[in-house]
Order: sequence, then structure tokens, then C-alpha cells
Amino acid sequence: MTTNQLINQIKKKQSFLCIGLDVDLNKIPKHLLKEEDPIFAFNKAIIDATHHLCVAYKPNTAFYEAYGIKGWKALEKTISYLNENHPEIFTIADAKRSDIGNTSTMYAKAFFEDLAFDSVTVAPYMGKDSVEPFLAFKDKHTILLALTSNQGAFDFQTKTVDGTKLYKHVLETSKSWINAENLMYVVGATKAEYFADIRKIIPNSFLLVPGVGAQGGNLQNVCKYGMNANVGLLVNSSRGIIYASQESDFAQAAANSASNLQKGMEDILEQRFS
Amino acid sequence: MTTNQLINQIKKKQSFLCIGLDVDLNKIPKHLLKEEDPIFAFNKAIIDATHHLCVAYKPNTAFYEAYGIKGWKALEKTISYLNENHPEIFTIADAKRSDIGNTSTMYAKAFFEDLAFDSVTVAPYMGKDSVEPFLAFKDKHTILLALTSNQGAFDFQTKTVDGTKLYKHVLETSKSWINAENLMYVVGATKAEYFADIRKIIPNSFLLVPGVGAQGGNLQNVCKYGMNANVGLLVNSSRGIIYASQESDFAQAAANSASNLQKGMEDILEQRFS
Repeated sequence: MTTNQLINQIKKKQSFLCIGLDVDLNKIPKHLLKEEDPIFAFNKAIIDATHHLCVAYKPNTAFYEAYGIKGWKALEKTISYLNENHPEIFTIADAKRSDIGNTSTMYAKAFFEDLAFDSVTVAPYMGKDSVEPFLAFKDKHTILLALTSNQGAFDFQTKTVDGTKLYKHVLETSKSWINAENLMYVVGATKAEYFADIRKIIPNSFLLVPGVGAQGGNLQNVCKYGMNANVGLLVNSSRGIIYASQESDFAQAAANSASNLQKGMEDILEQRFS
Repeated sequence: MTTNQLINQIKKKQSFLCIGLDVDLNKIPKHLLKEEDPIFAFNKAIIDATHHLCVAYKPNTAFYEAYGIKGWKALEKTISYLNENHPEIFTIADAKRSDIGNTSTMYAKAFFEDLAFDSVTVAPYMGKDSVEPFLAFKDKHTILLALTSNQGAFDFQTKTVDGTKLYKHVLETSKSWINAENLMYVVGATKAEYFADIRKIIPNSFLLVPGVGAQGGNLQNVCKYGMNANVGLLVNSSRGIIYASQESDFAQAAANSASNLQKGMEDILEQRFS
């Protein structure tokens, strides 16, 4: 998917919501456990109920790998279901991979070719030659971890490196990599005050923003400091939507929760772009 | 596996060799492609031919994920084969994972419980709460990326953070994490001159050392500066062993290549510990 197709979808749906499909079998409604593939049954119901309210889905691979082969099968079925039924939706493999060059190429093939995701999250610690293999894929997007939403972000990411914070150094350095136009960045909503500085370095890039809702981030602040002329934000919510109810009404509850977030986004877009 | 069991195995085999099982279907002998599971068939032949010469095997998950379900199945069969037939061997899932706390727990379950590896490689960028979930597993080992063997290591890892290089800051900081005794570290052989400094920070920890052979690292130098009183090194070779021949004699050629490395290690151990 091209960035313009993503922007058009955002304008059409008046939403920049990404829904995190982080499926834990201990948290889904009990009646689904009788299904042949409970994880996919859950995802399908969530997608059917929410696809008109969001522009992206983001399965976190950890939740699938934890269930071994059956988890990986559920991931394959989920991405295939999305690509067949909702090709306009931007898909994100939240995998946080990276390795030396030839190995990163194998990861890129896994997520961009075998599973056919539009994008994958990638960790920056190993530098340029660990990320460029992902960037080489046309109309695929590499979402680099910059400033994450967890407490551990303060261990290394916000430390000062040669006079600038490490996450800013990552942002700045990544701009020189080959096919850098295929980069997006993860910036946690829990650190909204950092968005203004981040926009000085990467004014045009899309930011994937976790941490709104369960982790305490605030949508208004994120948009105030992080939005650009093309919106430039994908705000993710996982638990707040998919586990809004753990009863038989879970899909409707997820839709209601997603709708609340979408309405908030619509208000912000109207104020900003009217 | 406990660290003492690993040390005993090293002494018994006079080897601290780790063999990287990075299986690329374009590089394995053509006749294996007729097998039902060519990846596992290749791994089994390599393991059968080399298990007496090495103390660890390290499949890199990228090479399995790139083949989707059949790749993940081959990974499962490989680790099961190792655990059933060679329980004394230390197994490393080279996965370079990490995520926020509850998600890292899912990764830890995937590799320590579902697949039953002894250890997994983990990236440090997201800090303490992304690594501690791995450390919580008793007699399992978390191998943190410190200084990697690729050129991109110089992009961020060797930058100066608050007066010290980032990779040293990672080493120092990680020592305070809960269950830090379950940490090992990745330090590339291509940067042997750094080992002396690293040993000042973590004198007792095991180091997983990629980059000997194909990437140009030198075994003598690594041992000179990196070995400690318990050996404290696992030196990995992947391509140099498993692709020593791409013909029908590939397993014997792998054994010959592994044997050459093991003999070099035996010489060093004799000089050092006699």
C-alpha cells in the first residue's frame, strides 16, 4: 500500500485508528474456545465489527508465537482474511525484528512476502544494515522503534548521545538510510510532550502511536503535538477495544469502544482541517 | 539448563563451539529438496554429524519464519530432536525479540515453554521491563545484544552516552535487573579489541560470539581478551560449517569444518587451563 492510499483512507473514514489484535486465550470469551481456531474466530469477529471505524490492524506476533504452530496459522488466516476482504486496510506486523543484513532480508520476506503485511515494526539497535533490507521493499513500510510507551524507554532511549537524546539520534540517522521514505516510527502516546521535538526532525513521516487508553496516553495531546498536514498519525488501541467485554457481546462492545475513539478523531480532524 | 551444566559440557567436549542453524533452501544440497521437510532433514544430518564437536546449536528464527508454517514446523522438529536426543546440548533461539512487559512474557513463553529452548537472544532498546519477563524463567538464559558483529553496530551501540559507550551502558545497566544472573550477552568477534573492556564490566557472564569465520573474526583474539575462568564464551559459526559443502557430502564437510574449530578451541583451552 502506498502512503497516499493510507492518507485517502484516513480522510474517507475520518479515522486514524489502528486496532491491536493481541489475542490472549485467557481473555477472550469462553464460548470461542470451542471453535476450531479460537484466535482467528475472535479476530474475525473483531474485524467484522470494527473495520469501518479503523484504518489499520496490528497483530503483535508475540501473542501468536506463544501458541506455536496453531498461533502462526491463526496469524496467517487473520492477515489473509484482511487482505481478501478489506484490501484498503493498512496492516502492521508488530514484530520488532532486526538482525544482520542477510537475516533481516529473511524477516522482510516473512512479513512482506509470505504473510503479505503492508508494514512491520523494526528495532534500531543494530543500525543501518539491519534496517535497510526491510526498506528495499516497494510500497512496504518499515516502522522503526523510536520512543516506546513503556517505562523502560527511559533506560536507553532518552539518554543523551553526543549531545542529543538517543531516540532523536535514531530519528536523525535513519533519515540518511537508503529508501528512508519507506520509514514510519513508533512513538508512545505516554510521552506526548516529546512529539513537538520529534516533528522538528521528521515532519512528514507517519507515526504509529501506542499507549492511548490502557497505558494512559491522551489522544488530544498526541494530536496537538504530533499531527501534520497529512494527519501523519496512526493511533493504536489494543486491550481497550478488543477486551471491552469478555462476554458474548464482545464484538459489539469492541465496536462501541472503537466508535468512541473514532468520534474523538473525527472531531479533531474537523477542527484541524476545516 | 544451568550454567554449571553448560560449563561441564564445555570441559568434557573441550569445545565452546555453537553451530548456527540458519537454513536457506537455496543453499542446501539439491537432493534434500525432495524430502518431506527439507529444512529439518538438513538440520538432522548436521546435528548427527557435529553434536560431539559443539556444545550449542543456534537456529536463527528469521530463516524459519521466512518459510511460514512449514518453517515454524521445521523449527519445532529441530528443537524437539535436540531435546530428545541431545539433552546435554545448550539450545539458543536467535530471535532478537523484546517488547513491553506483558508482550515479552508471551515471547518468553513461546521460546522457553512452547519450544523449550534453553535461551533466547533479546534486544535491549526497550529497556528493563522488556527484558525482565525473560529473566523470570528459572534455568533459562536471556542473551542480550550488547555489541553486534555487523557494520551497523557503529551507528548507535558505540556512540557515547553520558560519557560511556552505549553498549557498555547497556551492560552496566542490565546488571541491576531482577534475575540478572540469567543474562548472557552477544558480543561480535569482529570487535575483539573491545572484549577486554567488556570483561571489566561483566567478568563472569557468558558471551555468545558471532562473527568468527565468514564475518572475519579471529578466534585467538576473542579468547585472549574474552575468556574467563569458566571459559565464558560460546563462539558461533553458521555458514562456515553448515555450507562447507553443498553436495551430498555436506554433513561430513560440516563435521570437518566443526572439527577444525573444535581443535583450535581445544588447543586454547589446554594452554589456558593446564
